[in-house]
Amino acid sequence: MPVEIERKFLVTHDAWREGASARRIAQGYLSRDPDRVVRVRLIGDQAFVTIKGRRSGISRAEFEYPVPVIDAEELLKLCLPSVIDKTRHEIEIAGFLWEIDEFHGSNAGLIVAEIELPAEDTPFERPSWLGEEVSSDSRYTNSYLSGSPYSTWAHDA
Amino acid sequence: MPVEIERKFLVTHDAWREGASARRIAQGYLSRDPDRVVRVRLIGDQAFVTIKGRRSGISRAEFEYPVPVIDAEELLKLCLPSVIDKTRHEIEIAGFLWEIDEFHGSNAGLIVAEIELPAEDTPFERPSWLGEEVSSDSRYTNSYLSGSPYSTWAHDA
Repeated sequence: MPVEIERKFLVTHDAWREGASARRIAQGYLSRDPDRVVRVRLIGDQAFVTIKGRRSGISRAEFEYPVPVIDAEELLKLCLPSVIDKTRHEIEIAGFLWEIDEFHGSNAGLIVAEIELPAEDTPFERPSWLGEEVSSDSRYTNSYLSGSPYSTWAHDA
Repeated sequence: MPVEIERKFLVTHDAWREGASARRIAQGYLSRDPDRVVRVRLIGDQAFVTIKGRRSGISRAEFEYPVPVIDAEELLKLCLPSVIDKTRHEIEIAGFLWEIDEFHGSNAGLIVAEIELPAEDTPFERPSWLGEEVSSDSRYTNSYLSGSPYSTWAHDA
């Protein structure tokens, strides 16, 4: 069974922008049920339907299938409100790929960095801009942000 | 956008069994939300993930993607209880294919015949075993039967 191990962090400053590549992503959810998340993602000229089981620690079952872009555009209209709009920046640091998601629209102001690891305890280099770890905070999942956008959270002044 | 037009009927006697081919189907639901149904189906050595929008009359948007059988077996474990177990019998009558679903397990006793048509008003030959039309009765959708099996319905004595 395919299993995805990811660690997720907030970002403290903008040094990561140097050298990062960027792609715009639209993604929505046909199911936000944590036991059976169904995501539609449109990224450039590629599109995917992804099914994820319940998270166990920082691991979870994940099944991803490519779909035609024209289908994804229709599938996004079937998704629960609202569809996530974000820019994904990618940068390699010390042999690992970091994905840094900068959210737009109703989630503007939120920037989250993720690293995918082969095992839950794999060591990795921490860049200077790395902030608080939020791997276990379900509010930072895209499925939660789709239903409860960052702009609606109560923020510290 | 792909649109599926189907009419659905109950079945009054067993004459349809003659000449029909049969395949066992296991199918479950990752979402039973009528606006965005997500179905996993395992049929012999084939498997599919299917996404359906809200029904409008007897039409609805439908997107179907083949997936590996080994994935489908895992995806069925992620589905909402319970997974539907049925035998699909197929028979051609006067140029149209009838699909006759004979349910097992918690839906045993229910047999439903479906015909797919090119338009909502296409005329077709009605076989002698055709009973009441239930195209618009949402209780006869597989997604409803998955959550509220036929054996739990209040039946007339």
